[in-house]
Amino acid sequence: MESEPKLRIVVDAMGGDFAPAHEISGTLQALQETNGGFEAILVGKEEEIREHLRKQGVGGQSYSVVNASEVITMEDSPTAALKQKKDSSLAVGMRLHQEGKADAFVSAGNTGAVLSASTLILGRVKGVGRPTIGAFFPSEQGVFLLLDAGTNVDCRAQHLYEFAVMGSVYVKEIMKYEHPTVALLNVGEEKKKGTEIVQETYRMLETSALNFIGNVEGRDLLAGKANVVVCDGFVGNVLLKFGESVPSFLKSRLKRYAKTGFLRRLLVGLMRNPLRASLKDMDYEEYGGVPVLGVNGVSIIGHGSSSPKAIKNMILKALEVAKSRINRKIEEALAQSPPVPSPGQVIATAQ
Amino acid sequence: MESEPKLRIVVDAMGGDFAPAHEISGTLQALQETNGGFEAILVGKEEEIREHLRKQGVGGQSYSVVNASEVITMEDSPTAALKQKKDSSLAVGMRLHQEGKADAFVSAGNTGAVLSASTLILGRVKGVGRPTIGAFFPSEQGVFLLLDAGTNVDCRAQHLYEFAVMGSVYVKEIMKYEHPTVALLNVGEEKKKGTEIVQETYRMLETSALNFIGNVEGRDLLAGKANVVVCDGFVGNVLLKFGESVPSFLKSRLKRYAKTGFLRRLLVGLMRNPLRASLKDMDYEEYGGVPVLGVNGVSIIGHGSSSPKAIKNMILKALEVAKSRINRKIEEALAQSPPVPSPGQVIATAQ
Repeated sequence: MESEPKLRIVVDAMGGDFAPAHEISGTLQALQETNGGFEAILVGKEEEIREHLRKQGVGGQSYSVVNASEVITMEDSPTAALKQKKDSSLAVGMRLHQEGKADAFVSAGNTGAVLSASTLILGRVKGVGRPTIGAFFPSEQGVFLLLDAGTNVDCRAQHLYEFAVMGSVYVKEIMKYEHPTVALLNVGEEKKKGTEIVQETYRMLETSALNFIGNVEGRDLLAGKANVVVCDGFVGNVLLKFGESVPSFLKSRLKRYAKTGFLRRLLVGLMRNPLRASLKDMDYEEYGGVPVLGVNGVSIIGHGSSSPKAIKNMILKALEVAKSRINRKIEEALAQSPPVPSPGQVIATAQ
Repeated sequence: MESEPKLRIVVDAMGGDFAPAHEISGTLQALQETNGGFEAILVGKEEEIREHLRKQGVGGQSYSVVNASEVITMEDSPTAALKQKKDSSLAVGMRLHQEGKADAFVSAGNTGAVLSASTLILGRVKGVGRPTIGAFFPSEQGVFLLLDAGTNVDCRAQHLYEFAVMGSVYVKEIMKYEHPTVALLNVGEEKKKGTEIVQETYRMLETSALNFIGNVEGRDLLAGKANVVVCDGFVGNVLLKFGESVPSFLKSRLKRYAKTGFLRRLLVGLMRNPLRASLKDMDYEEYGGVPVLGVNGVSIIGHGSSSPKAIKNMILKALEVAKSRINRKIEEALAQSPPVPSPGQVIATAQ
């Protein structure tokens, strides 16, 4: 018998593009890999879920199924869907977590809806104005966290500052980066570059307790100049999606090159493995989803097209985050927040 | 004897990182390639320029040298430098163009300073609130123009609309794209995505005479969904610099892979040519610089590290733009501008 009770993870079985098949396979893989080290709660259309479980021929020790009659699709408007579909797998699952009947929540569903449900049902960590979702990027120095990745397109300086604090706590507690470096994404290195909002954020970060290394530019990202990079969700979203499209662009270009001769075709064929190996960590499946940061709970969100492996990694990540005390740390870090410098004050004292 | 007088092109001989060497070599290459088809006016420190010309052993038929005692560096603040360095090669050269003593201006110098000098000395085309500088991106469907690329970090909807008009005229007149498609860079395809400003821009573009195809996302850029993509200069700058860093990231990754075995090293060596060929048009040297759009004249700006070949291409581009009637077309297109929809009006009538 174990001394500690098992953690209970809600899996939104109806979330992703391949739900519930990938969700169920991924959950079973996670149970296998941890030797049943957690309790899975599959939430969604019960009959459909049980049908899939039967097909995969598994018994029912380490998991339970909770029925939810509705599904929020990728096309649904996040806030409207939450109001209209009260019995969605997302809402039902999130409430289980909020009521203390589960320790974490995992979904590959509609990102905006998961963020909204996390914020509305779990509530915000004290001191957080805007919860956020980040994205992991590869770099020459290892993986870094960019946030916001698209959930908050209009941000004030205070929000960007909070993203920096939450990102810094996350990479320290979960990714084990000691004294993580934090940078502000900007159009130049100098303090006075960028929009008014970005300049104000610079002044806040500079006086904060974070390990702030200043501005970084677009070209510094893949070079890996910082462990945490802060930007608004508009910039983050464009950048993330652009980055994800690079491998397929390269592939299309090489295909065209291969058509110009037999030897070239051969060569491009030989290049497949080195390229795949080199671009492996541009692959979101490895990261195990991204957390919604700043909410009172553990909510992990994955790509809509998540494979079973990606779902498995999301569950393992949820276990890790649930064991950490990350929300407490975020609250503490924000409590030491520097006073917001008003533009007037700062202009008077600059340089 | 030719019937038409030769066009006169001012080359800012002190502009780039390798000035005046690359500027002079590039100018001589352009003269050679066009069989002396234009008159070059090299502006900068006369003695230094003449010394370089002597070294390269050329006579003086198709070029002249105009002295300017000061140099604006890459580190100079654009507006301050223009005020303080009245006799800079940039200011002297731009004034020659403004006074009608030259037909175009070319520089690989400080981008912000070239934009400021173009705007202040040449003035704006009627109807243009903010002149802009774009950037050329490769795509699976050929090169497209993204603008603004970093000069206007804070934009209102009216500015973004003007960028769309100017970009559309440019790719039609100079790049010969028939009915060029115009898209708005956003975080989603739907009309209601993005910031307030982006949503307002959408409504303006939708009612304009442009061939507007709606929103595109970061992932659509390299796929080549549009000939002209509009965004504010913050997003454009981050994206441009990120894109430019991709080849070197790939190189570093492959280098690491090559270290894991002899055969792999061999393979990565063989990959050099296919990769170079495939990524060739991510190379700014091919594009011949980018024009400052919306100013009363022809001002072409290049990368600070421009090679002689890049300078040559900038001059050839300047000749082409000077022969076009692009500024007249921009003025005409803006005169048909749709009324700015106020948010109030639109909310009342939406859907």
